[in-house]
Amino acid sequence: MRYFLFFVLCPVFVFCQGPDSLIIRKIYDEALIQGNSYENLRYLTKKIGHRLTCSPAAAAAVEFTRQVMSRNDFDTVYLQEVKVPCWTRGDLELGRILSTSGSGQIDVRLTALGNSVGTPPQGITSEVLEVHSFEELKELGAERIKGNIIFFNRPMDPTEISTFSAYGGAVNQRSKGAVEAAKYGAVAVIVRSMTLANDDHPHTGAVSYEDSVIKIPAAALSTKSADFLSNILLNEKNVRFYLNLNCEYYPDEISYNVIGELKGSESPEEIITVGGHLDSWDIGEGAHDDGAGCIQSIECVRILKEISYRPKKTLRVVMFMNEENGLRGGKVYADNAALKNEKHFAAIESDAGGFVPRGFSFSTGQDTLKKFQSWLGLLSPYGIHDFTLGGGGADISYLKNQNCLLIGLRPDSQRYFDYHHAETDVFEAINKRELELGAAAMAALIYLLDTYEIP
Amino acid sequence: MRYFLFFVLCPVFVFCQGPDSLIIRKIYDEALIQGNSYENLRYLTKKIGHRLTCSPAAAAAVEFTRQVMSRNDFDTVYLQEVKVPCWTRGDLELGRILSTSGSGQIDVRLTALGNSVGTPPQGITSEVLEVHSFEELKELGAERIKGNIIFFNRPMDPTEISTFSAYGGAVNQRSKGAVEAAKYGAVAVIVRSMTLANDDHPHTGAVSYEDSVIKIPAAALSTKSADFLSNILLNEKNVRFYLNLNCEYYPDEISYNVIGELKGSESPEEIITVGGHLDSWDIGEGAHDDGAGCIQSIECVRILKEISYRPKKTLRVVMFMNEENGLRGGKVYADNAALKNEKHFAAIESDAGGFVPRGFSFSTGQDTLKKFQSWLGLLSPYGIHDFTLGGGGADISYLKNQNCLLIGLRPDSQRYFDYHHAETDVFEAINKRELELGAAAMAALIYLLDTYEIP
Repeated sequence: MRYFLFFVLCPVFVFCQGPDSLIIRKIYDEALIQGNSYENLRYLTKKIGHRLTCSPAAAAAVEFTRQVMSRNDFDTVYLQEVKVPCWTRGDLELGRILSTSGSGQIDVRLTALGNSVGTPPQGITSEVLEVHSFEELKELGAERIKGNIIFFNRPMDPTEISTFSAYGGAVNQRSKGAVEAAKYGAVAVIVRSMTLANDDHPHTGAVSYEDSVIKIPAAALSTKSADFLSNILLNEKNVRFYLNLNCEYYPDEISYNVIGELKGSESPEEIITVGGHLDSWDIGEGAHDDGAGCIQSIECVRILKEISYRPKKTLRVVMFMNEENGLRGGKVYADNAALKNEKHFAAIESDAGGFVPRGFSFSTGQDTLKKFQSWLGLLSPYGIHDFTLGGGGADISYLKNQNCLLIGLRPDSQRYFDYHHAETDVFEAINKRELELGAAAMAALIYLLDTYEIP
Repeated sequence: MRYFLFFVLCPVFVFCQGPDSLIIRKIYDEALIQGNSYENLRYLTKKIGHRLTCSPAAAAAVEFTRQVMSRNDFDTVYLQEVKVPCWTRGDLELGRILSTSGSGQIDVRLTALGNSVGTPPQGITSEVLEVHSFEELKELGAERIKGNIIFFNRPMDPTEISTFSAYGGAVNQRSKGAVEAAKYGAVAVIVRSMTLANDDHPHTGAVSYEDSVIKIPAAALSTKSADFLSNILLNEKNVRFYLNLNCEYYPDEISYNVIGELKGSESPEEIITVGGHLDSWDIGEGAHDDGAGCIQSIECVRILKEISYRPKKTLRVVMFMNEENGLRGGKVYADNAALKNEKHFAAIESDAGGFVPRGFSFSTGQDTLKKFQSWLGLLSPYGIHDFTLGGGGADISYLKNQNCLLIGLRPDSQRYFDYHHAETDVFEAINKRELELGAAAMAALIYLLDTYEIP
């Protein structure tokens, strides 16, 4: 495309010149001209890197974001103690198809699911059986499953337009597959990675266990490896699989939520919280998940401060610890809020990637949502068109029963699961402007919430 | 982000079950499950590569897309002869700052603008003067400019939300800078690359000359090189610059537009044309500009055929040749249409990148636009929210005076100028789903236009 057509192609945005639209314009100008988010995220991802709960890098991330908030002259910056679980992936992740035919032994790309137990030192070798649902597992039955490895291979549904819906339709294999398979006597599970991409990057993510069910090792296969294995299973009988993981648990340690505040000028006791989670999986750099959300949360309050907006309510930025494999930070934050009788008017979370923002989801009813939608006229010139019903995010979910409005930033979802929990989730996968626009959208929403509560 | 929150985060799309919404759902299912666009684009970009008008690769692209349309069983596939200009970049692109201070000689990253004349074999060495507008050029005046090199360094405005608007506000430096500077006696121009990214990739693009003004060489500097040079000019006097380009023109050759048709079942004489431009600059792989648009144009008609939709009007897919440095294909197509008295009801162009689609622009009035906007209820479940006024695209622009409705696909624009006309515009910069969603959006719009014309 050349210069020729742009003056006609570009829409003419007619900004109404009311005070709201002027302030929102200022917010976007600050984000796009003086924005700090991209460089802060570069430090968090390239210098500190991935930051699994309990790791030294997680401690570095606590200190880094504390310093950033202090240097932004927030009124208060402090740490909130959180007792966190300590799990390590170990240094051994082997998966091998033991074919009965000429194919022989083929190594596949896999990685342990987060929180998985390890295998015995010699690994586990057993027949591998493919299923696509817990119903199929039931049909297979305990006799067939006992002593074997279950391979969950139901893909995410590509026809879902929201990739989060596609994820929601497949992720029970990863989160609950080990428990369900163990009930029938399986000795391990391997799960197709939760991504719509066809590539060779295994995507980790938490597996849940139940106290009453034996804990079996669980790993994610890249989608290419999953397809490869599935194809072998289609053509051969008695295919065996060798899995060796040395994941381990250590006793809980102390870590922190990082909290910064701008004190409210009129109703300081009313709080609008905005945050993301500081921990990440120990693969990639946790750029989209959720370095972006953390840095955007700091940035949106910095922007409001920088344009000399004096908030009526107290604005609180929270870097939650341990979302990925425990959600302890969110729990501690909400427990403390309840204990202190804090009044959270609203909590906003950015934990769906640093992609171009499309809207927000609100934990409210249809009638109130309609009222919020009256703000879309102010935000549509910035590409924000979607105010929908929905939750806010995992970290803030515990605030729900404190009469707090939960809000989630909703960036475009198409690319998210290409990176999610994989080694591809690195700084280079972030676009500077998309990141900045997300921070600006959050700042604009906070301004409107602080000014009008509900329109 | 973990599995925890998706069922609440995701909006519930309530699809109304009318026939329109069912057909649109079928279109998206076909695009997302059986889509051919990603693999076709892989071939066009990785196997054929960049395809400057007149190059052997452009001929390969003509043959490839002709074959793809034939294999898709379009009713007719044919070539339309186009006489095209032949310009080559040559193999020499040198830019060097000759500092008067300790900095010494510093090579910078630049590339010739498309259609630029070359320098004399020994290059041009002269003082370099920085300006930001044609007004500044005028203020500087002929006496100061004569014999020197003009450095245009006005950045694209980052506060424009549409990056196309930011481009529109800066691109006259690239397109007209050489003519304007030559009027004051400049011997060459170097221009800051048209991108919002801060990196080291020069972005080419066409420079225009006027017959009455001497043609001087023109090159684009990477934004980092531009900032570097600007900083030196701020601190030193009499900074000289050495430029050596060996671009050349050859006599016109014969090339082709590639055209494929599905014959209309009720009004075959009425035509809906959809297309992109097959040529690209000779840098990168022309993936977003405009391999994506070409492949999406073929794909959207394939989808309609595949779901057994019988169009009332004739659907015509056009791969336009020579958009980047001549627009001859668009001209020939429109001239032929006029000659044959063809009735073009609508023409749709995809030439703004293979990013997630956000809407369409229509060359119509506000009242008719409002009518089209009544279709947004059908398309918003697929992330299409923006029906705006605007042109369609350069290739179809000549159809305007044939009473043809011009329509442009409008993908999200944030990342486009990171890649535009640069070596970064490669297949890897394309996301499969985003590409597919663009093709599906075009197919859905064609279905609606074919069924209802104007709602």
